[in-house]
Amino acid sequence: MKLREIGEREIVRDIIKKFSIPFDDCAFISLDNFYLLLTTDMIYEETHFPKGARYYSIGWYSIAVNMSDIAAKGGEIIGFLVAIAMPKNFEKESLEEILNGMEDCMAKYGGKILGGDTKEANKLTICISAIGKVRKEELMPRKGARVGEALYVTGSIGKGAYLYKNEYDKLLQIKPRIKEARTLAKERASCCIDISDGLASSLYQLKEVNGIGFRIYEDLLPIDNIAKKMEKPLEYALYHGGDYELLFTISEEKGKMLENKIDIKRIGEVIKEEKIVIVKNGKEKEVGNRGYEHFIS
Amino acid sequence: MKLREIGEREIVRDIIKKFSIPFDDCAFISLDNFYLLLTTDMIYEETHFPKGARYYSIGWYSIAVNMSDIAAKGGEIIGFLVAIAMPKNFEKESLEEILNGMEDCMAKYGGKILGGDTKEANKLTICISAIGKVRKEELMPRKGARVGEALYVTGSIGKGAYLYKNEYDKLLQIKPRIKEARTLAKERASCCIDISDGLASSLYQLKEVNGIGFRIYEDLLPIDNIAKKMEKPLEYALYHGGDYELLFTISEEKGKMLENKIDIKRIGEVIKEEKIVIVKNGKEKEVGNRGYEHFIS
Repeated sequence: MKLREIGEREIVRDIIKKFSIPFDDCAFISLDNFYLLLTTDMIYEETHFPKGARYYSIGWYSIAVNMSDIAAKGGEIIGFLVAIAMPKNFEKESLEEILNGMEDCMAKYGGKILGGDTKEANKLTICISAIGKVRKEELMPRKGARVGEALYVTGSIGKGAYLYKNEYDKLLQIKPRIKEARTLAKERASCCIDISDGLASSLYQLKEVNGIGFRIYEDLLPIDNIAKKMEKPLEYALYHGGDYELLFTISEEKGKMLENKIDIKRIGEVIKEEKIVIVKNGKEKEVGNRGYEHFIS
Repeated sequence: MKLREIGEREIVRDIIKKFSIPFDDCAFISLDNFYLLLTTDMIYEETHFPKGARYYSIGWYSIAVNMSDIAAKGGEIIGFLVAIAMPKNFEKESLEEILNGMEDCMAKYGGKILGGDTKEANKLTICISAIGKVRKEELMPRKGARVGEALYVTGSIGKGAYLYKNEYDKLLQIKPRIKEARTLAKERASCCIDISDGLASSLYQLKEVNGIGFRIYEDLLPIDNIAKKMEKPLEYALYHGGDYELLFTISEEKGKMLENKIDIKRIGEVIKEEKIVIVKNGKEKEVGNRGYEHFIS
C-alpha cells in the first residue's frame, strides 16, 4: 500500500504505537527536577519552499519551527543540532544566508548551534533537532485539560494561510511564542499544543489525548486582519495551518489575569462531550477534522 | 562559489568557526556530574544507498551510525529522534522494514525512539538525532592525547571498502562499538574518534585538535581478512572509510591490560612532531591526508 493512500496522521499513529512514543509536541526525558525536551523537524526544498523564499528566511524558519515545539511545552531552549544536505552546485553564499537566518533567530529567541552534519544531496534538505528543558511542575503536556476550563490561543490565526498564498517569504519568518509560553508555564496552563497543523486539527488532537471536547465561538476567534483580505477567513483560520501559535487550557481566573499580561484570546471552553463545536449566532455546529496532511494533501 | 569547489571539510570548518562549535563526534551539554551527548546524521537515498540496499538495513544503519558517535565519546545511549521524508508513492511495507531495522538495532545495542517527524519528499531521506550520556570523568573527547601514549583501534579495518564494492547491504549492518567504548571510558582512554571517514583522515583530525603526531606500523594494522581480497588493502584501510571502529590513545600499561579483555589492536604511538607517519620495513613514510569527502569526492 502506498503512503498517499494512508496519509500522514495514520502513518504517525502507526509509528508512535510501534515504539510506544508519547503523542506530544516534544519528547521528554526525566532528569532530577526537570524534563529535557527534544524535537526534530525536517524541511525539504521541493515540498516546503515552493516559491519566492529567501535562503535567509529558510534558515530562520528551520530553527523557529523547532522553537515553537519547545515553547508549546513551556520550555527554555538549550540548543540545536543542524543537519544540512545540499547539492554539489549549491552556492557557498546561499549556505551562508541560511546560517545567518538561523543565527538571527537564535539571537532573538535563544539557544545556540551545538553540532551538526553536512551531506551531499540533489535537493536542499535541512533537519534541525532542538533540545530544551522545563521544570517538571511547569511542563505543559498535551494531556491535562479539565472540563470547565477556558480555551485560549496566543496571537492571531489565519495569517499563515494568507502569507502562504501571497507572501511566502514572510510566512517563513515565524515568531515562536517562547516568552508567552514561559509565562503560561509559570501559571500552570493545564495543556498546550502548537497549532501549526491548523486550529481544527489541533483541537481534535487534544480531544483524542484528553477524552474531552471543546466549544469555540466564532465571534471570539482572533482572525488576523491580514487574513480578512481572503474570501473565507474563518475556513482558513480553522483548517489551513501555518500559524505557529499556542492553543492551551487554563482556569477561568488565571486566564483572565493573563489576558492583561500577554497577547492571548479566550476562544472557548473544555466540555465533557467528546466533540468539537463552533457557536455562531447562538447555534452550535460541528467543526470538521481537517487540516494540512503530508502525502495526501 | 560552488560547494564542490570547497569540499565538505572546509565547509564544516567554516560552520564550526561561525558558531564556535567544538570539533568532536558529539556535542556535549554539561549537567551536574555528567555530559549529555548529542549527535545527528542525515542519510539520503541517492548519495547513500547506491545499489542493493534493503530497507531493513537502511533503518539499521541510520540508527547505528549515530550510536557509533555516542560510543566514540564513551557514552551510554538514551534514545533517538527520527525524521523521515518519503515520496507519496513510497510503500507502507518499505517504511515498516526501515522501522524494523531500527528496532532490531536498538534491541541489540540499546536506546529507544523518543519522537520524530514525517515529511513528504521526492527521495527517501532519514535524519536521526541521538542523545546519550557519560559521566564527566569518563568522557573520551577528541582532544586529550599525550606524547608517548599508545594508539589503538577496535576490531579490524578495510572491511568497509570491500563491502562498499561487493556487498552493499552488509556494509550497512554496522556494529557500533558501544560495549568496547564503555570499557575504554572506564579505563580513561585519553582521546577517541570514530574512524568512519577513514583511518588517515581520523588521524589528521586528532593531530589537528591535539597538536601532536602519530607513528603507525604497517605490520600492526589489523586489516580485515575480507579486505585482503582486494588489490591494495592497505590503501583502502587507510583512505576509504566506512569502518565504524574507534581510534583511541591510552597509556601503554592500560592498553596492554585491555588487549586481553576487548577486541582492540595497538597500531602505533603518539609522537611530538606534528605529522602522521607509517613505518614499513623499518622505514618511515608520510601518510596522506585523504579520505571520503562530500561535494568533491
